[in-house]
Amino acid sequence: MSGLLSRAQLEAALRRIGEERYHHLHPFHHLLNGGGLAKGQVQAWALNRYYYQRMIPLKDAAIVSRMDDAGLRREWRQRIVDHDGNSDEDGGLRRWLALTDGLGLDRAYVTSTDGVLPATKFAVEAYLHFVREKSLLEAVASSLTELFSPLAIGARVRGMLENYDYITPEILAYFDKRPEQATRDSDFALAYVLDNARRPDQQQDALRALTFKCDVLWAQLDALHHAYVAPGTPPPGAFRPEAA
Amino acid sequence: MSGLLSRAQLEAALRRIGEERYHHLHPFHHLLNGGGLAKGQVQAWALNRYYYQRMIPLKDAAIVSRMDDAGLRREWRQRIVDHDGNSDEDGGLRRWLALTDGLGLDRAYVTSTDGVLPATKFAVEAYLHFVREKSLLEAVASSLTELFSPLAIGARVRGMLENYDYITPEILAYFDKRPEQATRDSDFALAYVLDNARRPDQQQDALRALTFKCDVLWAQLDALHHAYVAPGTPPPGAFRPEAA
Repeated sequence: MSGLLSRAQLEAALRRIGEERYHHLHPFHHLLNGGGLAKGQVQAWALNRYYYQRMIPLKDAAIVSRMDDAGLRREWRQRIVDHDGNSDEDGGLRRWLALTDGLGLDRAYVTSTDGVLPATKFAVEAYLHFVREKSLLEAVASSLTELFSPLAIGARVRGMLENYDYITPEILAYFDKRPEQATRDSDFALAYVLDNARRPDQQQDALRALTFKCDVLWAQLDALHHAYVAPGTPPPGAFRPEAA
Repeated sequence: MSGLLSRAQLEAALRRIGEERYHHLHPFHHLLNGGGLAKGQVQAWALNRYYYQRMIPLKDAAIVSRMDDAGLRREWRQRIVDHDGNSDEDGGLRRWLALTDGLGLDRAYVTSTDGVLPATKFAVEAYLHFVREKSLLEAVASSLTELFSPLAIGARVRGMLENYDYITPEILAYFDKRPEQATRDSDFALAYVLDNARRPDQQQDALRALTFKCDVLWAQLDALHHAYVAPGTPPPGAFRPEAA
């Protein structure tokens, strides 16, 4: 088994996982940013990603519910506030619906989640079960994909605005606030992991948790790619783009 | 909402779900049976399917653990016995390893599950969580894919023996006992569902549970197809067939 890593070594090992496995490397991501998708494929992405978005506050509440320390809980609950806002007109989840609205998807269809790929649901729910069932350290470590998200978001917003005439800054409002929030959140989570993964087995748990989370994100793009790009065969019951 | 279905209508509705959504309709299934796969692709199938097999007795134990009636438990526990056998040399899971052995996969690699696709794990674990968290009626109804398995197995055994020179009857021993077991098990489960789904909402729950289970099986073949057939891009860390 591996020996104890220094704080710097552990941080480097965590960042290396992102460099090798974060979903900014996925072919679907390049197609999306580069203008390589038809509108129906962009709709499929936004529709499926909504399923992930709607699970985020449940995931964060599950993490808060496992924290014994009030200071930790106060820090982490901000994520729930950011996502759910202070009314139905506010918050990250609401801004995601501005994106699906802007893409012409029916709001009731989106929120019903009826057209979401089963593989998306399985991956997203695996994440929720992971943070409920694994150690708090692993639950926190699994959030560290946010270390890598600011870069991915920048490329996505620039690429989508440039490459799709129906994409406007208003539609992409979700992404305005995410880099700042993600940086604040992942700085905190990284410090927590580096402070609390003090035995070799805990360090390996943290690395595996981040790998798991990268798998969750990657599997969602694999499922989208398979259903809507190549070979482009959605499973029975899933969203089918209208013929262009 | 839907009204109350007669016993015959409910059975017909359940069978229709299988006709429309069971994974015998999936392109990967046709490739496997028809000799359209290279050996590395058949290995990938057996390796990933092992992850499903190893979860089956856990799933059945979870169902037994939710049954208040000793007679029901006695009936259902036979599934655990069939799968785990009476020694390490016996049982359905052991016979699945005869298949992975026969395909030249390293036993320790297979049982480590390290090379299994994350999407396979997410789908399989979704099934385990489903039977733990939903009603007993839904857990039993989700097992009804076995109504359709004898037909799929017949075509698979015939096709694989005919089309792959490295496939022998000994390697496929797993499938010898499955049609008889599956028929016994699914007759019992079907009667249970028809007896216990007495309200419209319960009937709809049972139909949704069977749909969910078809999605679990379909998503596994979608993941295999994407990773190993078209476009044939396994995610980071997953099994990669040796170059032929």
